[in-house]
Amino acid sequence: MDVSANTDGGDDAYVIGVDFGTLSARALVVRVRDGAEAGTAVSEYPHGAIDRSLDGYGELPPDWALQDPADYTRALGEAVPAAIRDAGIDPAQVIGIATDFTASTCMPVLADGTPLCQLPGLAARPHAYPKLWKHHAAQPHADRINAVAHERGEKWINRYGGKISSEWQFAKALQLLDEDPELYQRAGRWIEAADWIIWQLCGAETRNACTAGYKGIYQDGSYPSREYLAALDPRFASFAQDKLAHPISPLGARAGGLTAAAAALTGLPAGIAVAIGNVDAHVTVPAAGPVATGKMVAIMGTSTCHVMNGAELAEVPGMCGAVDGGIVAGMWGYEAGQSGVGDIFAWFARNGVPGEFADEARRRGVSVQQLLDEKTVADPVGAHGLIALDWEGGNRSVLVDGRLSGAIVGLTLATTAPEIYRALLESTALGTRKIIETFDESGVPVTKLVVAGGLIKSKPLMQIYADVTRRPLSVIGSDQGPALGSAIHAAVAAGAYPDVPAAADAMGRINSDVYQPDSARADVYDELYAEYVRLHDYFGRGENKAMYRLRAIRDRVLYERPEEGKREAADQ
Amino acid sequence: MDVSANTDGGDDAYVIGVDFGTLSARALVVRVRDGAEAGTAVSEYPHGAIDRSLDGYGELPPDWALQDPADYTRALGEAVPAAIRDAGIDPAQVIGIATDFTASTCMPVLADGTPLCQLPGLAARPHAYPKLWKHHAAQPHADRINAVAHERGEKWINRYGGKISSEWQFAKALQLLDEDPELYQRAGRWIEAADWIIWQLCGAETRNACTAGYKGIYQDGSYPSREYLAALDPRFASFAQDKLAHPISPLGARAGGLTAAAAALTGLPAGIAVAIGNVDAHVTVPAAGPVATGKMVAIMGTSTCHVMNGAELAEVPGMCGAVDGGIVAGMWGYEAGQSGVGDIFAWFARNGVPGEFADEARRRGVSVQQLLDEKTVADPVGAHGLIALDWEGGNRSVLVDGRLSGAIVGLTLATTAPEIYRALLESTALGTRKIIETFDESGVPVTKLVVAGGLIKSKPLMQIYADVTRRPLSVIGSDQGPALGSAIHAAVAAGAYPDVPAAADAMGRINSDVYQPDSARADVYDELYAEYVRLHDYFGRGENKAMYRLRAIRDRVLYERPEEGKREAADQ
Repeated sequence: MDVSANTDGGDDAYVIGVDFGTLSARALVVRVRDGAEAGTAVSEYPHGAIDRSLDGYGELPPDWALQDPADYTRALGEAVPAAIRDAGIDPAQVIGIATDFTASTCMPVLADGTPLCQLPGLAARPHAYPKLWKHHAAQPHADRINAVAHERGEKWINRYGGKISSEWQFAKALQLLDEDPELYQRAGRWIEAADWIIWQLCGAETRNACTAGYKGIYQDGSYPSREYLAALDPRFASFAQDKLAHPISPLGARAGGLTAAAAALTGLPAGIAVAIGNVDAHVTVPAAGPVATGKMVAIMGTSTCHVMNGAELAEVPGMCGAVDGGIVAGMWGYEAGQSGVGDIFAWFARNGVPGEFADEARRRGVSVQQLLDEKTVADPVGAHGLIALDWEGGNRSVLVDGRLSGAIVGLTLATTAPEIYRALLESTALGTRKIIETFDESGVPVTKLVVAGGLIKSKPLMQIYADVTRRPLSVIGSDQGPALGSAIHAAVAAGAYPDVPAAADAMGRINSDVYQPDSARADVYDELYAEYVRLHDYFGRGENKAMYRLRAIRDRVLYERPEEGKREAADQ
Repeated sequence: MDVSANTDGGDDAYVIGVDFGTLSARALVVRVRDGAEAGTAVSEYPHGAIDRSLDGYGELPPDWALQDPADYTRALGEAVPAAIRDAGIDPAQVIGIATDFTASTCMPVLADGTPLCQLPGLAARPHAYPKLWKHHAAQPHADRINAVAHERGEKWINRYGGKISSEWQFAKALQLLDEDPELYQRAGRWIEAADWIIWQLCGAETRNACTAGYKGIYQDGSYPSREYLAALDPRFASFAQDKLAHPISPLGARAGGLTAAAAALTGLPAGIAVAIGNVDAHVTVPAAGPVATGKMVAIMGTSTCHVMNGAELAEVPGMCGAVDGGIVAGMWGYEAGQSGVGDIFAWFARNGVPGEFADEARRRGVSVQQLLDEKTVADPVGAHGLIALDWEGGNRSVLVDGRLSGAIVGLTLATTAPEIYRALLESTALGTRKIIETFDESGVPVTKLVVAGGLIKSKPLMQIYADVTRRPLSVIGSDQGPALGSAIHAAVAAGAYPDVPAAADAMGRINSDVYQPDSARADVYDELYAEYVRLHDYFGRGENKAMYRLRAIRDRVLYERPEEGKREAADQ
């Protein structure tokens, strides 16, 4: 088949993929016929992740993380034209645009899509803002969601490994209802940023199958029942019906045409195809070449998402979700994840490394993290005597609990910062191994491990992952996996390919088996993995709930001291 | 009684106390009649603690820590004359000198006292050097000592909480025998640095009751039997008889007169009283004023020693030792300890704190540790959500195991370096509480808690100790507790007082109940203590031997890789 024959713009047709990340958005200009990346540009969000304090409000409680939606539209207006300029193409050659987003990043908006935080008088109300994926303050609400689901025997709960995450739509919405009921009432819609940005491009509300399934508990054609929601809180009974319900669109479908306003913002032609919204991790799968069952793609950035297609439905303990058509229409999409990965490395590089290393890195023109990689890459596995749990950002799989926290065991007076850094790198690899083994044991075997995302640049880290998992590591052939994946969806939405797998064959790229496991190193990692699993179960499965109690003490002394009153109360 | 009537030099008589620490020695000139401190001086050891590499040998294995005895004699020649100058007195006014030392810091010497490391051809042999107290590489030997003692039902083992430490004379000597048998043979004597330094001053070998009892397993008038030692290793059968045996002298006794050579070295009059050797921690007790049973003195420096007199003998699990006359002649001296305290804080300040704090400290002219103290002093107890085990230097009491290591639980992406620092401060206070409770539960109640040592300068740390232990904290009235304690012993040896308690009444100083516990903070610390105890027992009492296994993996990959061979073997 000559796929180019389907392309509106012929051999010189291009599509735009825009990847909305945690701190910035990247636009990528991609040639439709072969996936060649012609140009790119990044727009940093001026407000970044709002996790310490909010202007006009003051210090946020722990575990909060918000964003400003104005940063998203600003990024469209900045990154898209800049990427077109970088590519040196004529905007008229662009036949479609698609986006992907962090998730669940969700927000309250009016019925017309206006974010509540942009209404007069609401700028200092934390609950009026989008709650970023890594907002972990809705854990009590997730607990309630899970407890009531199990009590009532809700069937959908097993599609999510038995646990709904505090990061998702329902937990965050329930927190809004609990803590700022007035804003809850004013929210005409509760929407993923992934869908909201499409609204800004094509002028109409849409809902994509991916976030609806993975983050919105949409299974077998419906949301959780009115009775279930009422059992959570009578005021919550009509939440799905009032604030979520909308036809669900398959990934790669056309959401509409680019509006005149969006055309003016982006410099693209009005009327070109706008694809249905998508999620940064899931959209990356076709960017890594041919779509196949058993091929796990780990998108490693601030956090890691593990996404994989399966032919059939299975229940995997502690995964994030199994969704029909959640990654590619027609297959069951599986998702697991680690809440903190690059985030943990960056946290340690900022907070745990003496100045001498920063000075050396500056002198040599490398990042602190690159320097730390180098400092221990030659050390034999196990030489640091350390084991760490990778839960500084909570545990998304397989324990699904944002209240878990990090731990380091084996410190001595001879332990150095680079050694701790390496133990943290390893902790995330051990966490990934735990996830892979859980899939294997649940009848969804992982037959090929592919890595994507910003962290693939660290060769020492990649080798650790190959050694720890004892598997060859294949690497996506693009530095911009999510944006390329979005571009693939744009091409499908524009009609250039019949479906996403066909577009992935033509436009995706993979380098197979780049890192091979070393069996001597893998043998020692087997020992360290045994230590990891033991501590994982000890702290994570209830034998010692120290992490929960420490967090509860922290929250109590910080937010429930009688002389100060509850900060939450002040917000109401 | 007019004690000054007993003073050879009348009202203007002085004594010298010299405190040999881990990295330096301090001489203190003290007026005999009232303990007034007239002058002081410090001499840094040029070789410090030799724990990374040894000239001519190369990198030392992990857990090694040696010293160079030439640093000790050099310190006598430097600090004593400088302290006399600082005091502005005539050396002829000095009627006695006494010293105290870290322990067990022990060494192989010829029959005439010459250290083996000073013999031709032995300078590059690690085993020829004194093994510093914090040399922890003899743990396998301590294990053998303990196992065989329990198998044979040796009664003395219960005087040491059921465990002999890897830090003590027998474990270190057995390591010498195992790893460098030729040097073991050449050692005519195996002697504490505390006694060796007295040999240099008075020209004769002596053995003091304190190190013999606490570090040399000397109980009820004898060392462990020939049969027991042969069971450890047939070549070790006559160890005590050949290399240790010597009359034991009570603390405060006169060892002899200052030799002409030592007089030339120190600038003091030949023939003045030299007191029997002593240990830095134990000698501090009389420096803190009146001697009484139940008064625990915690000497807090790089490590902490908890010393206390009791009227009767009791067996306290995991203490370091109960020795008749071990602190003050006529009472049972109890000792417990924490292997790392100030060492842990200094390790973290060096290895775990970003440059911005070092820069701020420099700008403000404070130490990094002072700055970190300040940064979290106002935080509510428990606000950091962390709990740490204080075993970065092993556990001396109540688990008595140098292979244990540190752990931190509760880390999040919001955790800061000052918060970790505070959790480390608290971990040592929680460890002290564990020791106090163990004494209380064993029939040796702690009725008064006194702190001494370099760490008393940190008021935030002291308040943490008061809050964590829920006890008022009394503070020694001298910044130079050990040196003052030595001076008190010099005065007794010179005949200025009839005994140490009488001298302590006149020359010691204490400020009672300086820090009061705050009950609200203490309540939260009770919760954190429960977490501490749980992790203490989990990692320390065999439920999860992860720390042992991690250490074993480390040692194996570092020292037993076939391509490198054993470093120890290369030494033989």
